[in-house]
Amino acid sequence: MRFIGLDIDGSPWVARLGDDGVLPITTVDEFWADAAGWMKRAEAATGDLLPRGERREIPFVPPAARVFCIGLNYRAHAAEGGFTPPEYPTIFGRWTASLSVSGVAVPLPLGEQGLDWEAEVAAYIGTPVWNADETESAASVFGYSTFNDLTARRAQKLTAQWTLGKNADKSGPAGPLVTADEVGSLEDGLQVRTRVNGTEVQNGNTRDLIFSIPSIISLISRTLTLHPGDVIVSGTPEGVGYVRTPPWYLGDGDVVEVEIERLGTLVTPIGGPSAREGA
Amino acid sequence: MRFIGLDIDGSPWVARLGDDGVLPITTVDEFWADAAGWMKRAEAATGDLLPRGERREIPFVPPAARVFCIGLNYRAHAAEGGFTPPEYPTIFGRWTASLSVSGVAVPLPLGEQGLDWEAEVAAYIGTPVWNADETESAASVFGYSTFNDLTARRAQKLTAQWTLGKNADKSGPAGPLVTADEVGSLEDGLQVRTRVNGTEVQNGNTRDLIFSIPSIISLISRTLTLHPGDVIVSGTPEGVGYVRTPPWYLGDGDVVEVEIERLGTLVTPIGGPSAREGA
Repeated sequence: MRFIGLDIDGSPWVARLGDDGVLPITTVDEFWADAAGWMKRAEAATGDLLPRGERREIPFVPPAARVFCIGLNYRAHAAEGGFTPPEYPTIFGRWTASLSVSGVAVPLPLGEQGLDWEAEVAAYIGTPVWNADETESAASVFGYSTFNDLTARRAQKLTAQWTLGKNADKSGPAGPLVTADEVGSLEDGLQVRTRVNGTEVQNGNTRDLIFSIPSIISLISRTLTLHPGDVIVSGTPEGVGYVRTPPWYLGDGDVVEVEIERLGTLVTPIGGPSAREGA
Repeated sequence: MRFIGLDIDGSPWVARLGDDGVLPITTVDEFWADAAGWMKRAEAATGDLLPRGERREIPFVPPAARVFCIGLNYRAHAAEGGFTPPEYPTIFGRWTASLSVSGVAVPLPLGEQGLDWEAEVAAYIGTPVWNADETESAASVFGYSTFNDLTARRAQKLTAQWTLGKNADKSGPAGPLVTADEVGSLEDGLQVRTRVNGTEVQNGNTRDLIFSIPSIISLISRTLTLHPGDVIVSGTPEGVGYVRTPPWYLGDGDVVEVEIERLGTLVTPIGGPSAREGA
């Protein structure tokens, strides 16, 4: 089953996404309070389908959700940036304020040569998780989506901490949530591809992840309690733009696509100043 | 004027804090949609004061607020950790899920020798900020509070990114918000003191900050749009526990106090496993 977020008269809702349209299910907060229950109810739900696009799509996680992004989680990507693969998962954070959805233009932050692409799989936590082993951690994953961890490299590299360059406005677009039963384990291998204006720039497979999603959840759960709606973002395979000769950045008018097996294709246009919020 | 957050029948509210009690003003979301307006209304507001403590205190920022913490922002603190003062502010993030308030016990994360203290000043953004110079950035600060950036050092130091160790459950307690008109500029100097079980362990002054709050806001505002309720946390002066010989960590039963001129005293007991959420 697939879910998206919808703005229904100013309130954030979760809707079931089908080939024939979308069916609003409940509010984002209610949904994550009982994700497994709402999945069952959504399966049985009937009602008039809305055409997709009639309501504005929005992120489907709660405002307080934490987005734990993993850096350097493919050996070839660590190597292309001049890094040694780390002994533990390299965790940095996004706030939900940086999240967006497919089709929305992402503005260029100031002072950057452009934005860089990073195709990733996002995993969504469905139940509270504390001090969990890998089996319990795997069972806590409710679903997955495509994700593009669009990066402002100048801001990312100003100091040793990457936070600023990983939280530009609208820089974290995610596709629809696909429930875990339709995806299986990332270790079985999902092909991850990125295209810029139609040219393939990344082509990796999740079976090459250094740290599995369950092992990352298990590690995090010893320091803090994960909540439903929290997100683990897998890390990106090799082929990002900043390490190329010459460097290749996304600019106004470019279109970047992230296509992941079983999860779909996330399309993100890059915009000029007019794409900025409030502009 | 001082404000705190209150849980009113399950909804998050902002309340005016006076010597005689607290007066609920409006919901957290409404408050930050027009902080300056609600400050005026709160000044004129009358009604029955509640005794402080009758309702549960909670953080007063919106769930989606971003907490931008600054590392290494005092020369002596950078030096005690073996760091060179950085050329730009070292920004790492906390999610609001890690925030707490005065008096609430903080549980020890697993696998840590204890928690480390870091007394800081938190500055609260009152208006949207994009591409602002330092003067505009200074004007965007609505108020300040005490803050203890309690740190799980093992988790912080697992990799180069500090995120995990800076987001343990309840590890970011903040005191009441004091509006900027009662505080003035941090460059004028606020004394910042930390005591552990009554023994002074930190004693610094905000005039020694390497990067001022307005300069940090200005820098951030070139990459992303700051929203009302977002928080900038100043960084801590020298005297943290992990660099001592032998290292000194907070354990079950310890009490840590952060006292900052004009902002008050934040008292935080450290708890055992029973202090954990849901335990």
